[in-house]
Amino acid sequence: MKNTAVIGVGQTKFGELWDKSLRDIAVEAGLSAIKDSELEKGQIKALYVGNMSAGRFSGQEHLGALVADNLGLKNVPATRCEAACASGSVAFRDAWLAVASGSIDAALVVGVEKMTDVHGAGALTTLAAAGDQEWEASIGLTFAGLYALMARRHMFDYGTTKEQLASVAVLNHENGLKNGFAQFQMPITIEDVINSSVIADPLRLFDCSPITDGAAAVVIASEDIAKKSGNQAAYVLGSGKGTDTLALHDRKSYTELLATKIAAKAAYDQAKIGTKDIEVAEVHDCFTINEIIALEDLGFVEKGKGGRFIENGKASIGGEIPTNTTGGLKACGHPVGATGVRQVVDIVKMIRGKCFNKLDAKYGMNLNIGGSGATAVVNIFGKEPR
Amino acid sequence: MKNTAVIGVGQTKFGELWDKSLRDIAVEAGLSAIKDSELEKGQIKALYVGNMSAGRFSGQEHLGALVADNLGLKNVPATRCEAACASGSVAFRDAWLAVASGSIDAALVVGVEKMTDVHGAGALTTLAAAGDQEWEASIGLTFAGLYALMARRHMFDYGTTKEQLASVAVLNHENGLKNGFAQFQMPITIEDVINSSVIADPLRLFDCSPITDGAAAVVIASEDIAKKSGNQAAYVLGSGKGTDTLALHDRKSYTELLATKIAAKAAYDQAKIGTKDIEVAEVHDCFTINEIIALEDLGFVEKGKGGRFIENGKASIGGEIPTNTTGGLKACGHPVGATGVRQVVDIVKMIRGKCFNKLDAKYGMNLNIGGSGATAVVNIFGKEPR
Repeated sequence: MKNTAVIGVGQTKFGELWDKSLRDIAVEAGLSAIKDSELEKGQIKALYVGNMSAGRFSGQEHLGALVADNLGLKNVPATRCEAACASGSVAFRDAWLAVASGSIDAALVVGVEKMTDVHGAGALTTLAAAGDQEWEASIGLTFAGLYALMARRHMFDYGTTKEQLASVAVLNHENGLKNGFAQFQMPITIEDVINSSVIADPLRLFDCSPITDGAAAVVIASEDIAKKSGNQAAYVLGSGKGTDTLALHDRKSYTELLATKIAAKAAYDQAKIGTKDIEVAEVHDCFTINEIIALEDLGFVEKGKGGRFIENGKASIGGEIPTNTTGGLKACGHPVGATGVRQVVDIVKMIRGKCFNKLDAKYGMNLNIGGSGATAVVNIFGKEPR
Repeated sequence: MKNTAVIGVGQTKFGELWDKSLRDIAVEAGLSAIKDSELEKGQIKALYVGNMSAGRFSGQEHLGALVADNLGLKNVPATRCEAACASGSVAFRDAWLAVASGSIDAALVVGVEKMTDVHGAGALTTLAAAGDQEWEASIGLTFAGLYALMARRHMFDYGTTKEQLASVAVLNHENGLKNGFAQFQMPITIEDVINSSVIADPLRLFDCSPITDGAAAVVIASEDIAKKSGNQAAYVLGSGKGTDTLALHDRKSYTELLATKIAAKAAYDQAKIGTKDIEVAEVHDCFTINEIIALEDLGFVEKGKGGRFIENGKASIGGEIPTNTTGGLKACGHPVGATGVRQVVDIVKMIRGKCFNKLDAKYGMNLNIGGSGATAVVNIFGKEPR
C-alpha cells in the first residue's frame, strides 16, 4: 500500500438548511474541497459519496452519479457507500484504498445528508434503519433508546453519573462556540442538560446530537501529488474498519464497542504509533454516553473511567487528549452521511495548524460509528508520511 | 494491481419469495458462495454488499453489518455499495479493488434486493429514485418512461421495430427456460409481447423486466488462493466503471450510453483483449431496448443495427455473441442490487464450463447499468490470469 494524504478539505455550514437541496450542499462541499486541493477537476479520478438514507430523506438514490454529474466530474467512476452513521468514513476508507492501491492517484470523497426535508416522525424512523429492523426498529427501539440502554448499563457497572454524561454536552457546546460551521453555537450548563426533556432515560434532550443538513468533502491523493501541494497535506497513516452484531442484544457487553477496538487496533498497527502519540481526536458523540465509551475503547482512559475523565477536563483543550474540539456531533450537528467526512476535515485542519481552535497537531485521529456500534472506522493522520 | 479470480459463486432462486426475508436471502446466497469457494469463513477478510434500496423496501439500511453479522463473518470490514441497478457490480468492483490492491486476499460480495414486500406503488416510486428525483421522478417519469424515450428515438433514428424489441424478450424467455434460478420459465412469442399491455409506449409489459426478490454472491480472491482452488477459478481480467449525467435530458444522445462505452474501454484495455475475443455476455436488459443498445455500445454490432442483429439470431446461442443465455434480467428477474452479482455468477459458471446452458467460454463479460445509464460497470473474465 502506498502513502496517501488529504490535500483538500471543504464543508457547508451544518444546520437546518431549508433553502438548499441535497445536491446543492453536496456540490458546495465538493467544489470547496477541490478548490482547496488546487487540483484541476480532470485530476480527480474517482468519487466516493458517503450517505445513509437519501432514498428515504429525499427520494434520491444513485448519489455517486448525481454528485459526479452536478460537480462536473465528467464520467468518473462513482460509488455511494453506506454504513449508517459511519457512511462518511466508509466512503473515505474506500477512496483511501483506491489511492493507496495505486489504481488511481486522486479521489474525491463527499459525505452528505439532507435530513430536515422529511415530515413528522420521518427522521426518527429513517434513522432506526441503522439498527436491526426486525429485532429493534420494528418494535419501536429508537437510537436514543439503544444508547440509553448502554448509558444505563455504564452507570450501573461503573458508577457513571448523569452529570458526567452532561459534561460531554457542555464541553462540546463550549468547543463549538467559535466554529462557524457548527449548528449550535451556544453555551449550555450541566443544569441545562439534566433539566432538559427526557428522550430515553437516562438520556435527555441535550444528551442527543441533533437532526442536521450538511455536507463535507476531502480530496485524497498519492504522496507524489501531496508533495507538490506543499504544506497542505495531512498524511493518512492508518485506517481501520470493524463490524459487530447489528442488534445490541447479541453483544456480550453493552459498555464497549468491539468494532471500535478492532478498527483502532488495525489503524494503530498500520500507523505504527500508539494511543499516547495522538494529540487530537474527533470521536462519535451521537449521544453523550458514546463519547465516554469511545475514549475508553480507543485506549485514552481505562474502561469505566471515561465519565470522570471528561468531567475532570482531561478531554478538553489543554487536557490529556483534546476531543471534539470543534464541537463534535453534539454542537456541529450530525448529518449522518457527512459526519465521518466532517471529522476528517477537522482533523486535517488541526494537522495543518489551520483550525479555528488554533490546535496544531503532529498526529490526530477520528472515530466514526455506524448504528449502535455495528460499524466503526478509525483513521489516523499525521504531518509526515510513514 | 495483482491478479484476482472469482473462486466461489452462489445465488438464491429469483422470484416472489414471500416466505423469506431480506436477511434470509442474503445469507443463503453468501453461504452458498463461501461453500463453493471451499474457503473457511475466517479467510474472508472483507464484505461488500450491493443493494439499492433496502431502506425503502425493507426499512433496513446498514446492510454491510447486517449481512456480516448474519453470515457469521465475525468483525470483518463491511460496506454496502449503491449505484441504483448497478449496485451489485459496484460492490463487486470495490471488492476486486481491495483484493487486486493486495490489501486483503479474499472478499465476499453479496448482491441483494427484496422488492416485493412493499405495498401499492411502492416499488415503482422506489425505483424512480435511481433517476434524477428533482428533474425526472418528481414529475412522474418512471423507468419504463425513460427507456421508452430511448426506444422511441432508436426507432426514429435507425428504424428499429417493435418486433425487434419483442425478439429480445422472446430470446431471453427461451434462454431462461432451463434456468432453475429464473423467475420466469415460460416461452413467449413475438405476438405475446406486442399484444401485451402498454406500459410506456412503445414498451409493453413483456418488454419490461419484473419486480423480483433475490440474492447472489461471489468470493473473489488473489491468484495464489485461486490456484489452490483448482479449476474453479475465473480470473478477473478487466473491470471498468463509468458515469454519465443522472438525468436523461442532459445527454447528447438517447440511443447510446456513454457510461457503457467508458466502462467497456477501461475493461478491454485492462484485459488486453477486444470485443472479438468475448464468447459470452450477460448484459443489462431491464427493458428490451437496453439489450439492443448494450450490444451496440459494447462493440458487438454497429450502432443502430442491434435490433436486426438480435432478430436474426446473432445474439442467440450458436450466434456471433451468445447474450443473456441464462435469461437475462427479463427471465431471471431483476432484484436490482443483486443483478450485477448474478451476472458475474453466471459468467463464471460459463468460464468454468459448468453452466446449465453447457457453454464453455475462454472469455466472458458482464455489463450492469444503473438508472437510465448514469452508471455502467463492465467486467471481463477468463480461464487464465493475465
